[in-house]
Amino acid sequence: MSVSGKMLQFMESGSWIRKMFEEGARLKQIHGIENVFDFSLGNPNVPPPDIVQEKLLQVVQEAVPGKHGYMPNAGLSETRSAVAAYLCRQHRVSLAAGNIVATCGAAGGLNIIFKSLLDPGDEVLVPAPYFVEYGFYADNHGGILKTAPTKEDFTLDLHAMENAVGPRTKIVLINSPNNPTGQIYSADSLMALGEILTRKSSQYGRTIYLVSDEPYRKIVFDRSPVPCVFSHYPNSLIATSYSKDLSLPGERIGFVAVHPEAEDVQSLMGALALANRILGFVNAPGLMQRLIIGLQGICVDVEIYRRKRDRLVAGLKEAGYDLIVPPGAFYLFPKSPIPDDVQFVRILLEELILVVPGSGFGGPGHFRIAYCVDDGTIERALPGFRRAMNRAKAAG
Amino acid sequence: MSVSGKMLQFMESGSWIRKMFEEGARLKQIHGIENVFDFSLGNPNVPPPDIVQEKLLQVVQEAVPGKHGYMPNAGLSETRSAVAAYLCRQHRVSLAAGNIVATCGAAGGLNIIFKSLLDPGDEVLVPAPYFVEYGFYADNHGGILKTAPTKEDFTLDLHAMENAVGPRTKIVLINSPNNPTGQIYSADSLMALGEILTRKSSQYGRTIYLVSDEPYRKIVFDRSPVPCVFSHYPNSLIATSYSKDLSLPGERIGFVAVHPEAEDVQSLMGALALANRILGFVNAPGLMQRLIIGLQGICVDVEIYRRKRDRLVAGLKEAGYDLIVPPGAFYLFPKSPIPDDVQFVRILLEELILVVPGSGFGGPGHFRIAYCVDDGTIERALPGFRRAMNRAKAAG
Repeated sequence: MSVSGKMLQFMESGSWIRKMFEEGARLKQIHGIENVFDFSLGNPNVPPPDIVQEKLLQVVQEAVPGKHGYMPNAGLSETRSAVAAYLCRQHRVSLAAGNIVATCGAAGGLNIIFKSLLDPGDEVLVPAPYFVEYGFYADNHGGILKTAPTKEDFTLDLHAMENAVGPRTKIVLINSPNNPTGQIYSADSLMALGEILTRKSSQYGRTIYLVSDEPYRKIVFDRSPVPCVFSHYPNSLIATSYSKDLSLPGERIGFVAVHPEAEDVQSLMGALALANRILGFVNAPGLMQRLIIGLQGICVDVEIYRRKRDRLVAGLKEAGYDLIVPPGAFYLFPKSPIPDDVQFVRILLEELILVVPGSGFGGPGHFRIAYCVDDGTIERALPGFRRAMNRAKAAG
Repeated sequence: MSVSGKMLQFMESGSWIRKMFEEGARLKQIHGIENVFDFSLGNPNVPPPDIVQEKLLQVVQEAVPGKHGYMPNAGLSETRSAVAAYLCRQHRVSLAAGNIVATCGAAGGLNIIFKSLLDPGDEVLVPAPYFVEYGFYADNHGGILKTAPTKEDFTLDLHAMENAVGPRTKIVLINSPNNPTGQIYSADSLMALGEILTRKSSQYGRTIYLVSDEPYRKIVFDRSPVPCVFSHYPNSLIATSYSKDLSLPGERIGFVAVHPEAEDVQSLMGALALANRILGFVNAPGLMQRLIIGLQGICVDVEIYRRKRDRLVAGLKEAGYDLIVPPGAFYLFPKSPIPDDVQFVRILLEELILVVPGSGFGGPGHFRIAYCVDDGTIERALPGFRRAMNRAKAAG
C-alpha cells in the first residue's frame, strides 16, 4: 500500500491506447518496426511548418531581459494579446488579452478549467465517443464524467444532450473536430445546444458552462467550417493547443480563452491563473509562449492528411468496412465488422495492425485508426485490413 | 456561484506574496519603479550561465526526427539517463534512467508525487516555516498539510517531527536549502529523521515517504554541503528544477528522482508517469528536456548571491535586525522587531520596501527578504530598513 488506491486502480485498468502501445512495442521487437502498422497514437507525423523553426531560432536569439524568468501565471501579455487579436479576427468576438490564459497544452487547459469550476460531485457531460482522458481530468478535481450518445454519424444528438443535463451538470464539454470520430458539430447544433444550456441553467438556477476542446480546429478538409462556441453561448470557454496545427505536442503549449460576457468572467480569469499556479504548471513554457506570438493562424499542410484519409477511406471501403468519411482531425472510426470491437482489434493485431477499440472511447462496436502515419504504412497495411475483414465475415 | 467554492475561498484569502506583488505594482506606478525596493519575489535576477544559450541554440538547430512530438510521459530516455548519471556521480547512489521522471519544474514534480501517493485524508508533514504553495499541492490531491516547528535557527527539531508523525502521515516533505529561511538540514538530522520514519512506518504498518524539494541545492555559500536524503532513507524521493541553478524558472523544467530501493518502486514510477499524463502535464517541455542533457552540474555564479547576502546581512545587522546568516538559497528571514510581522511589513511598505510577512510561511514574527535583486536595490533600501527599525523600536 504505497501508491494511492485510486492510482493503483487506474494503472490496473490501464488505457487501451497504452495497452496497444505496449503490445505494439512487443510486436515491433519480434517482427521489426517496418512490419508493424501502428495506427494507435495521435502523434502528428507531419513535421512543423518551416516557419516554426525560423521563428524558434529568432526567439532564442532575441535579447530580452529576464527572458527565461517567472512571469504572470496567466502568461506573457504579448502572447495573450496575440492570441486575443487572432481570435477576434477569426470569430468576430471582442476578446482582450485579459480573456486568455496561456496553458501547458489543451490538457493543461482543461485541467485548470475543471479545477476552477468544479465543486465536489459536479458533473461534466460529454457526447460519446470521447477522448478517454476527460474522465481522468474530471476526476482530478472531484468531478464526475457523464456521457450522452451522439447520432449514428457522430453528430450531436440534441435530445440526448438535453435529457442528460441534470441539476449537478456544471460543464458540458465538446470536442470538434472530434477525437476519435473526426466529426465536426454544425453551427445549428451549437446554437441549439446553447439554447438548451440557457434553459437548463435557468431551470436549475446555476450556470452551466460550455467548454470546447478544439486542438483539431485547423485540421479540416474540403473547407469544412468549424463553428465557434463563442457565437452561440456566452458562458463558454475554449481550450486548445498548437500540438496538432503546428505539430508541437511535446512542447506543451496552448491556451484557454473565456467568452468576454461569461458570468463572473473576472473571477473566472483569476481562478484560471490561480489554478495554473497551484496545479504546478505555474505558467505555460516561456519560450513556447514567445514562439507562438508570431505564428497565429499558421498550420501544417492539411492536404497531406486529406490524402492519407482519402487513400485509407477508399481502401477500407473497398475491403467492405462501414465508416463515416470524417471532415476533420486525423482519425477514422469505422464500425467493427463483428459486434465485439475488442475481439476485432485482436484480429487486426494478428495482421500486425495496431488500432484502438472504440470501447476505449465510449464508442463500442467501432475502432479508431490514427492515420497520422507515413503513406507507406497505410499502403502496406491495407491488405491486412482486408484479410481481417474476411476473417471476421467468415467467423460471423 | 460560478467558480468552485474552494477556489473562491483561495482567491479571497489570497497569498501574501501575491498581495505584496499587487501592492508593489501600485506603489511602482505612484513612485516610479526605481524608487520601490521589491524583495517580495524569488525570481532569480542573475541571468542563465552563457553555456545555457549556447546549448539552447544547439538543440534548436539539431535535426532530430519527431523532435517536437509526443514522447513517453516520463520523459526522453536521454534526459532521464543524463540526470541519473549525474545523481549517481554526485550522491554515490545507483540510479538508472528508470528512476527519473522529467517534470514541469519542481512544482509539477511535487504535484505528481502527491497525486501518486496520497489517499483522501492522508497527511503531508512539513517543518515550518515552509513554502506556502505546499498546502495547495497537498489539497489538490485530497491531502492535508500538517506542520511541525523547527528550532530557533530553523534547523530540524527532530523531537517535534517525531511527535507530529501520526497514523495518517504518508509523506514528510522537507526543503533544504529552505525557502523562506535559507537553512540547510545536516546529514545527522537527515539520518535521525530517516530512523524516525523507519520506526514510525513500522509502528503504523504503512510506508511513510520522505520527499526532498531541493531547487536551491546548488545555491549554497562557503562550500556548505547539502546532504542527500537518498543516503539516509530508502523510501525517499527528490523533486527539483533547473529554475534557480540555471535561472530558467519560466521554462518549467525539473525532475523527480526515486530511490532505487523505495518500496514498490516499479509501481511508483508507473504512477508518477501516469500522474504526469492525467494531470495535463503529459510530459515536461520537450525542448527543455533536450537542453538539460548537456547541462548537468552547471550553475549560475553563486558568488553573486553570496555578495548580495553579505551586504544585506551586514546592513541589517548594523540597523539592529536579529537574523540567522543563511548558508543557502537567496532569502533572509529576519525577526520582526515587533511581534506582529504583518504590522512591521506595513511599516516597511511606507519605506517603499516590499517583503513578505513570515505568517505567510508558517513563520510568524519574521519576514522574508528575497535578495535575488540588483545590488543597487539592496544599497538604496538599507536606509529604509534602518528607519523602519527605528520606528518599530520607538513604537515598542
